[in-house]
Amino acid sequence: MVAPAGRSPLSPQDALGLRTALAAARKSYAEGGVPIGAALVLPHPPGEPSGEPVVLGQGHNSRVQLASPILHGETTALLDAGRLKAEAYRQATMYTTLSPCAMCSGAILLYKIPRLVIGEHRNFVGEEELLRSRGVEVVVLDDPACVELMKRFIKEKPEEWYEDIGETVPV
Amino acid sequence: MVAPAGRSPLSPQDALGLRTALAAARKSYAEGGVPIGAALVLPHPPGEPSGEPVVLGQGHNSRVQLASPILHGETTALLDAGRLKAEAYRQATMYTTLSPCAMCSGAILLYKIPRLVIGEHRNFVGEEELLRSRGVEVVVLDDPACVELMKRFIKEKPEEWYEDIGETVPV
Ligand SMILES: [Ca+2]
Ligand SMILES: [Ca+2]
Ligand SMILES: [Zn+2]
Ligand SMILES: [Zn+2]
Repeated sequence: MVAPAGRSPLSPQDALGLRTALAAARKSYAEGGVPIGAALVLPHPPGEPSGEPVVLGQGHNSRVQLASPILHGETTALLDAGRLKAEAYRQATMYTTLSPCAMCSGAILLYKIPRLVIGEHRNFVGEEELLRSRGVEVVVLDDPACVELMKRFIKEKPEEWYEDIGETVPV
Repeated sequence: MVAPAGRSPLSPQDALGLRTALAAARKSYAEGGVPIGAALVLPHPPGEPSGEPVVLGQGHNSRVQLASPILHGETTALLDAGRLKAEAYRQATMYTTLSPCAMCSGAILLYKIPRLVIGEHRNFVGEEELLRSRGVEVVVLDDPACVELMKRFIKEKPEEWYEDIGETVPV
């Protein structure tokens, strides 16, 4: 992944996490759903001889596809990862294409995930400050592809976006 | 429902909400699962001629039953209620048998549910202070049946309880 001008190149793990989250978001967009994706990545999984980071779980918002108010990108990535021991979460990084809402931020706090990488927060600013105040490392990438995808969706389907954040479309 | 000594009798709506949440928790216990239940109740649903409160959604923790790290009582009640308009959540009360974790508290904040009734917080204290600081009315009932059910489960299956809150069993 080429880093945009002005941004340091991503580490291989961060490039993997962002790429996976963005691919999930694009899949959701193609299905007519809310295009927010996420991935939970472990840097050095035990028993992984290559020493490469591994995607434990990934997924996208499924409000539209599954009529679910709780399947956001981040919660879907956690669901996809399945039942994990407390120790695994504490070594993981959550990647998400958009700044996380209160529910997904709370899920990060519940499982004590120490690091969160956010694709962008131009289209929505979630609970970044709460997470930082609880000791989570929060990195915002300002990724142009994440910004454009979400911007397009909000313009095309404002009712579904505002429903997703418990709001009504501004008049 | 008879109010325990020292507690004011519950309103009909609160009795309905707690009874529904506790029944879901007992069902989960009978299935071998984490016995935490919840219900989302609307006081005066539009188009409901009786004027009675209505349970929009209810459910229980399904970590064990469905191998899900995101299906807690409260998130399951939200899932059961389905896609709702922002206005519906803003008139609803969430009932839960146990003080809510960060994820479920975040879900309450996301959807701006203004009132939360908690069966008990002797076995676990969740994000009550965060919720109050954001303007949510939080009521703790100290219900003996909720206390006993959760206490029994934690004693019987500590591994599953601590996994549910992202912790390891204390040594
Ligand atoms: Ca998986
Ligand atoms: Ca239902
Ligand atoms: Zn979310
Ligand atoms: Zn919870």
